[in-house]
Amino acid sequence: MKIEKVTKNVSLKRSIDQGTDEQRQAVEAIIEKVRNEGDSAVRFFTEKFDGATLSTFKVTKEEMEAAYAHIDDEVLAALREAIGNIHRFHERQKRQSWLATEEDGTILGQKITPLDSVGVYVPGGTAAYPSSILMNVIPAQVAEVKNIVMVSPPDKDGNLPPGVLVAANELGVENIFKMGGAQAVAALAYGTESVPAVDKITGPGNIYVALAKRAVYGHVDIDMIAGPSEIVVLADENANPRYIAADLLSQAEHDALASSILVTPSQTLAEAVAIEVEKQLAELPRKEIASPSIRDYGAIYVTNDLDEAVAVVNELAPEHLEVLTEEPMQLLGKIRHAGAIFLGPYSSEPVGDYFAGPNHVLPTNGTARFSSPLNVDDFTKKSSIISYSKTALLANGKKISALARLEGLEAHARAVDIRLEEES
Amino acid sequence: MKIEKVTKNVSLKRSIDQGTDEQRQAVEAIIEKVRNEGDSAVRFFTEKFDGATLSTFKVTKEEMEAAYAHIDDEVLAALREAIGNIHRFHERQKRQSWLATEEDGTILGQKITPLDSVGVYVPGGTAAYPSSILMNVIPAQVAEVKNIVMVSPPDKDGNLPPGVLVAANELGVENIFKMGGAQAVAALAYGTESVPAVDKITGPGNIYVALAKRAVYGHVDIDMIAGPSEIVVLADENANPRYIAADLLSQAEHDALASSILVTPSQTLAEAVAIEVEKQLAELPRKEIASPSIRDYGAIYVTNDLDEAVAVVNELAPEHLEVLTEEPMQLLGKIRHAGAIFLGPYSSEPVGDYFAGPNHVLPTNGTARFSSPLNVDDFTKKSSIISYSKTALLANGKKISALARLEGLEAHARAVDIRLEEES
Repeated sequence: MKIEKVTKNVSLKRSIDQGTDEQRQAVEAIIEKVRNEGDSAVRFFTEKFDGATLSTFKVTKEEMEAAYAHIDDEVLAALREAIGNIHRFHERQKRQSWLATEEDGTILGQKITPLDSVGVYVPGGTAAYPSSILMNVIPAQVAEVKNIVMVSPPDKDGNLPPGVLVAANELGVENIFKMGGAQAVAALAYGTESVPAVDKITGPGNIYVALAKRAVYGHVDIDMIAGPSEIVVLADENANPRYIAADLLSQAEHDALASSILVTPSQTLAEAVAIEVEKQLAELPRKEIASPSIRDYGAIYVTNDLDEAVAVVNELAPEHLEVLTEEPMQLLGKIRHAGAIFLGPYSSEPVGDYFAGPNHVLPTNGTARFSSPLNVDDFTKKSSIISYSKTALLANGKKISALARLEGLEAHARAVDIRLEEES
Repeated sequence: MKIEKVTKNVSLKRSIDQGTDEQRQAVEAIIEKVRNEGDSAVRFFTEKFDGATLSTFKVTKEEMEAAYAHIDDEVLAALREAIGNIHRFHERQKRQSWLATEEDGTILGQKITPLDSVGVYVPGGTAAYPSSILMNVIPAQVAEVKNIVMVSPPDKDGNLPPGVLVAANELGVENIFKMGGAQAVAALAYGTESVPAVDKITGPGNIYVALAKRAVYGHVDIDMIAGPSEIVVLADENANPRYIAADLLSQAEHDALASSILVTPSQTLAEAVAIEVEKQLAELPRKEIASPSIRDYGAIYVTNDLDEAVAVVNELAPEHLEVLTEEPMQLLGKIRHAGAIFLGPYSSEPVGDYFAGPNHVLPTNGTARFSSPLNVDDFTKKSSIISYSKTALLANGKKISALARLEGLEAHARAVDIRLEEES
């Protein structure tokens, strides 16, 4: 890895696939056909793109149960423990409706209501991550969303990976449909004979899924369009270079476009990490992916001091931030922009990716400046409550109509005046 | 107004201006020019579109103070009281960061951080609403956003309306720039010599502003693209038809595309409201706007009973909902989708538009199914915190690497394993 001397005004090299015009048009055509023709269009595209001929899309209870034979007992136990941890963390995010009462009888408040229905997209093939199911479904369940629907593309034989089925079954998700790509997103957004329409679609996917989510956004809500994954490690001379190298590589193995960065005031550490990365990279099964990722989107930035290093981190606004300094908790107040903050030598990113409890769906591409990890709020919405008393209206009515007239909105003023006339 | 018998599966007639290709291209060209040329491009477009020749864009303290001469004392007092109410309501929305500690030394948590900077767009001309400044700026201030920048298009003489300047000054907003349209949105998104770049842009505007916000979304965050305003009144036979008619018209005067709907199980009330609307409409100064609005987007729906009426309301998912029934509070639990809920005969919509405290920036166009009123959360973001202890890593490390290997991510597993080797 190249070591660069920086002070500030650094930005991550970012590569986002916005799709080509052809891809956009293809996605629009798929959505239109599914919207008009429903299941038969989905069946057509599933045959075309996944090579699977399906009479029904819905996964049966038998299929779910049969999947357990393919999952190791220890892995299943770990999965169950992860579910418990993730559930517990997200329970803490839950918010209550509130009402504030005034002496004159007025009540103001905020009502929290779960979304009626949510669709979770689960990618197929090698990117079929059971952990992604946990991270998308559990916050929706904690929010008390009643209808959770899952879609995932089948293989040629019409099957879903056992890990996906087991994860879904452990969470009690019953509506799983074997469909993927833009056709599945369209089915979730508009509904078909088999698939109920939902209010929000979450979950990662390839460029066709991303473009389809963008296209249906507004008609339904979506979580986000995620860019390539990123890690920034902020470390001082006390950090273990082997840990840092391993963590940088765990990000790099995701995707050739993933970005792994070390920011440190220590030239010694920088050099040690650069050597360790090369060493560990050579032995990595996914080095075909990790190697170009480190080469094209990896970097080691050396700053004059720790404060400058923190400034660089805030400039980068990374998805994942690891802090491997002597007193990581002391830096928490200075860190303004990061999706998830991993403190200390034992908080390796995979701890959060799979197990600790916080969500692994995080803002990428610098959007940590203004966006949050996927959380329970994303599966609820607020409504304001205004119950004005007669006393309050009589006391304040004239002020309200004066403000309305300042804006030239006479009918607004009259809606108040008509009550003042009749009630006083 | 036409009275229709309905049961359910009703949807609002909605008309959203998506802009023409020409408008989109014009907006993209403006953004590009401002991005490349900064202030000089903004100066060019301000002369072209607003007819104003400006040497500097920033409003001076003297201009702000001079604006007070144009504002009535009683209106100013009402404005100040409204500011207090809105501030108090939004204070209740504020959330604290939290940390959860485990016995093994692990700490998990959620950090709430205000956005660094926010830009508020304030429309010009007849649509210059001081209330809109209050509703956009106060939640940002409660969230503790440090840099709040305001933009608003000047008149031909290079001035902003006194109501806008006074509202801004009362809130202590110091950075106000005389610029509007797509050029102002571009300046906020990318910064110019005069205007600092911001992380999020909020506030309403015309189609060029809406298209510009959509175009810069992703680079910065935006609040929403609002559609025409809507009110649904849910009422039973006890409601006063004069109040309902006045409230429907207060919505209709906003915009010929605004939508005003009564849903009631009472045929008698329906007929009385229809008559009252015609009567009050005839005497309205803005009847040229309200009349086509009522004709094209107004409706009175009569249902078989109150439960059916509530079902229709949920189907409509309105921006504003007024409940004028005998026991409005009893219906609160059944109402799932509405931006703001006004309960009882004294909670006329203008009470909430100007004064009571809750925000008047609300989800339109059925998005109350999944969106919320503008609120303090919109000006903060969350970061997850994971500080794993050595004990926790030694106890759980093997489970974590097993889950990583289930997904075929060996480098993830090794990032944990390398620590288990060195620490145990």
